[in-house]
Amino acid sequence: MNCIIAQSGGPTSVINSSLSGVITCAIDQGFERIFGSLNGIEGILNDNIVEIDKDKFISSNAQIRLMNRPSSILGSCRYKLPDSIEDKIYDKIFRKLKELEITSFIYIGGNDSMDTVMKLNRYMKAHDITGINVCGVPKTIDNDLCVMDHSPGFGSASKFVNNTIINIRNDIDIYDLNSVTIVEIMGRNAGWICASSLLANKNSKVVDLIYLSEIEKSKEDILKEVKEAFKYNKNLLIAVSEGFQDKDKFFINNNDQVYDKGFNHPIIAGVAQNMSDYIHRKLNVKTRAIELSIIQRTSNIISKTDSNEAFNLGYQALRLSIDNTDIIPILKRKDSTKYEVEYSYVNSSDVANKEKLIPKSWLQDMNTLQENMIEYALPIIQGEFDDIYENGMLSFINLCDFIKVNN
Amino acid sequence: MNCIIAQSGGPTSVINSSLSGVITCAIDQGFERIFGSLNGIEGILNDNIVEIDKDKFISSNAQIRLMNRPSSILGSCRYKLPDSIEDKIYDKIFRKLKELEITSFIYIGGNDSMDTVMKLNRYMKAHDITGINVCGVPKTIDNDLCVMDHSPGFGSASKFVNNTIINIRNDIDIYDLNSVTIVEIMGRNAGWICASSLLANKNSKVVDLIYLSEIEKSKEDILKEVKEAFKYNKNLLIAVSEGFQDKDKFFINNNDQVYDKGFNHPIIAGVAQNMSDYIHRKLNVKTRAIELSIIQRTSNIISKTDSNEAFNLGYQALRLSIDNTDIIPILKRKDSTKYEVEYSYVNSSDVANKEKLIPKSWLQDMNTLQENMIEYALPIIQGEFDDIYENGMLSFINLCDFIKVNN
Repeated sequence: MNCIIAQSGGPTSVINSSLSGVITCAIDQGFERIFGSLNGIEGILNDNIVEIDKDKFISSNAQIRLMNRPSSILGSCRYKLPDSIEDKIYDKIFRKLKELEITSFIYIGGNDSMDTVMKLNRYMKAHDITGINVCGVPKTIDNDLCVMDHSPGFGSASKFVNNTIINIRNDIDIYDLNSVTIVEIMGRNAGWICASSLLANKNSKVVDLIYLSEIEKSKEDILKEVKEAFKYNKNLLIAVSEGFQDKDKFFINNNDQVYDKGFNHPIIAGVAQNMSDYIHRKLNVKTRAIELSIIQRTSNIISKTDSNEAFNLGYQALRLSIDNTDIIPILKRKDSTKYEVEYSYVNSSDVANKEKLIPKSWLQDMNTLQENMIEYALPIIQGEFDDIYENGMLSFINLCDFIKVNN
Repeated sequence: MNCIIAQSGGPTSVINSSLSGVITCAIDQGFERIFGSLNGIEGILNDNIVEIDKDKFISSNAQIRLMNRPSSILGSCRYKLPDSIEDKIYDKIFRKLKELEITSFIYIGGNDSMDTVMKLNRYMKAHDITGINVCGVPKTIDNDLCVMDHSPGFGSASKFVNNTIINIRNDIDIYDLNSVTIVEIMGRNAGWICASSLLANKNSKVVDLIYLSEIEKSKEDILKEVKEAFKYNKNLLIAVSEGFQDKDKFFINNNDQVYDKGFNHPIIAGVAQNMSDYIHRKLNVKTRAIELSIIQRTSNIISKTDSNEAFNLGYQALRLSIDNTDIIPILKRKDSTKYEVEYSYVNSSDVANKEKLIPKSWLQDMNTLQENMIEYALPIIQGEFDDIYENGMLSFINLCDFIKVNN
């Protein structure tokens, strides 16, 4: 048995935990050769493949060090496979997999990447290809993957956002004047990460107002809410989803760089700055927009719980792939008072190209949302790693620490 | 002997270390009462004053916990005292200080705040006020304070910037395409923090290009340098000072919110976004602007060296204030192979309203700058604190943990 692993889509802080889980399982289950495809499926297409050195993996303590190394260490891609399974690209992929005598191909990615898993399986079915199983490992900071309790990567993004917002609150409180600070948080159409900023309110008021992708509001409503909030606090902190749109779409940038290649998602940013400009103009108070940007998906502020779960999902995926194809392991939350998860699985089509938004019933008002989010997300941000610093700077494991050099 | 302490100007991650140093010295030297003025000098003017509870300070372990609590815990202000010492505001201040039987007034702040120290001393001299000594403790992330080797706060800002840039590099490297990521770094007219991002290059290439406030370049030169850099690297990371201006001032925003109250400094931001838009338009590559914003001055990524030095300067300031007025303790680097500092002092007029830029001889080219910055700044970012997390979120000491509640 040989296996190959790839990472795809936007990175998370724990996507390498899943990689570590797959490799650990491969060693445990006696896989002979373990390959990594660089830049997702593109590595297979362009023959850009590395081989894991099992001895180096163990001696470099890569199993643990990968769990604390943000962003996809095998690289990534946003490559969308053609819809037609007659396209010759599929033949190219399977020829390469056959050449490497691959029995399991594990693709770590989000809803777009699960589209890749689905299509490869569709091709295999149509062409009666056997002996190769293609399974996925879910990941995304956005927490918008369907059928699972939560998405691996979300807990760490949430943890970064919360702790950064706590630091921002310490900063904005220092001046004795009215101010509005607007923090723009990732999540595309789903407001999960933004909503989880309310965890920071557990001990003291950190976030005053919140605007999610799931909620429509007019800019006039927002202005009214800001005025009202000034009755209780001088320095307001507003958390806003990057995907939030006011009713008139006044806060949305129109520029020439709004579409992601590949899966054609709009690249959305600018709502905080536009909202900041608007509030400043209308209320003549100090305003500031802060876009947390890509730091929130590749920060070393990692939830150990999230990292452990991502590891287990990677492990499960390879184990399941020995006898199954087209499988995605998922997390289910046990119905217990203490937070516990169990692992189950679904088919790629249950996850591919779908998205899960915050339930409507949670969105009635900020208190309801906060209570629901604390119950839901607080357990997922628990636990910390000890960062390794060298010369005052973070030191991470490198790919060359655990791959064969002359592959 | 009673003393009063205030914090002023923009916060740093270690400004509370200096506060801790002052309070510790006050306890050691037998000061009877220790007051804190909230929001800088405004607390004295508005009778917004707290008293430190020595027992609580010790029992809450505030001495250490303040050294790891970013942003001014006593609040801050950007209040500029009138130039005329005949203004009745001075009388109001000294009446309050007399009422509290203050013998030492310690003002922790940057070059603007040292203007306050200078003016108070000028007033005392003119009015023959004795028995009260007013001294300052230097701080600023910008590292632009004169006469001292480096400014307390700079090391931690630099450490945050370096480690954040290392995380950003992990993110931008994942896609196999040409991209330009531009990171905007604070420092007003001084490029120190931005230049110190080159420390991250010590182990591997993290920063490809750098544009400092101190250097003038045309946008065409920048484009040429970006094209050249693409020969060596696909994903470019550019560090840019918030105060960098191209020759045509093409990258500078003109909006209606550009002046800080009080000291009338321009609020500068937007250069990264404008540079990003320009490069995208000209080269048709993926570009992204990231503004590190206020997170860089109030992050929990703290240099222990910086924090210890800030503590010692606070301690020195109060100790010196027993017999002197108008004194600012400063850091000097010893002429030794191992990094060591010694403490000296200057007058407030040596620091007030002046700024120190990067020496011209360091700015010849990026290699020269990098070598000089590594020698200069690497020792200052050394050492880490163990963060305290509760429920997955950073937990900091609060003011009420060490002040008298019914003051």
